[in-house]
Amino acid sequence: VAGQRADARRNYERLLHVAAEAVAAEGADASLEQIARTAGVGSATVRRHFPTRHALLEAVFHEHIESLCAHAHTLEEAPDPRAALLDYLTAIVSAAASIRGLGEALNRGRAAGEYCATDRLTRAGQPLMRRAGLAPGVTLDDLLTLVTGIALATERHQDPAAASSRLLALSLDGFGPRR
Amino acid sequence: VAGQRADARRNYERLLHVAAEAVAAEGADASLEQIARTAGVGSATVRRHFPTRHALLEAVFHEHIESLCAHAHTLEEAPDPRAALLDYLTAIVSAAASIRGLGEALNRGRAAGEYCATDRLTRAGQPLMRRAGLAPGVTLDDLLTLVTGIALATERHQDPAAASSRLLALSLDGFGPRR
Repeated sequence: VAGQRADARRNYERLLHVAAEAVAAEGADASLEQIARTAGVGSATVRRHFPTRHALLEAVFHEHIESLCAHAHTLEEAPDPRAALLDYLTAIVSAAASIRGLGEALNRGRAAGEYCATDRLTRAGQPLMRRAGLAPGVTLDDLLTLVTGIALATERHQDPAAASSRLLALSLDGFGPRR
Repeated sequence: VAGQRADARRNYERLLHVAAEAVAAEGADASLEQIARTAGVGSATVRRHFPTRHALLEAVFHEHIESLCAHAHTLEEAPDPRAALLDYLTAIVSAAASIRGLGEALNRGRAAGEYCATDRLTRAGQPLMRRAGLAPGVTLDDLLTLVTGIALATERHQDPAAASSRLLALSLDGFGPRR
């Protein structure tokens, strides 16, 4: 039984590895059938591990999201709360603009209405948000929606990390001249 | 010959109509084969009229874009230049967030490196941009990238027009508290 469990674990890890490579090459809409073929398993096995595309994307990007959340925790005591929040959001936007499929995964995750990567990022960012203070009525969800949008709109730019960070900073400061 | 030209024109218009319905139903990635089948033509005919998906999306959204450009022209003499620019950008963002496939068409058009809808929107917006004055270093291209991103990130919201307009206004004013 222990051997079977170890086999199942190896199969899952192999499938996840293949899925991650497919998403890196083709984006969030990578073919599930192709992933099954490359991994040498049936599509029923893929569906058992990843019942929905949302589940597959969450698994593929799990470690990226965890590392962004860990980054948020290291910023909780930073001396400049506004800079700390910008640092966190910049880390998210440049990852989402640069890592193929991640921006789209964040965008669709919320629409799926399940607990998702965006919820984890929100929870990790709340302490930074509370310390930074923002314009009245602005929520962290607003900021993450903006971050996701900027990532999607800059992922085809020459330098997505730089382009997305620049637009994010402009949005936080305001594009318009001060009234 | 005149009859043949009229026939060709009718075929094109029928194909465009079918393409528009397919994009409205399935988004920017609507199947070209399905469009050919529904229109009762071969896929060579589709390719002759629309050599690339970009060309098809440009044709489908041509009138929407023209009407946004016309809106920009009506705003050129508006008494409040900043409000006029916000009005124009809000019209774009709510259209792009609400009309299925339009946000994605704007996002990909620029990547295609051809003259595209975004270029037309930029040209039409230049006079408004010059009058409004923006933060140093900000270009209309920055604003249209932001608008496209906000549209993509809000198109699955309950009220995409309202959500996108709100985020746009927040970005122009700045999300952060004034320093």
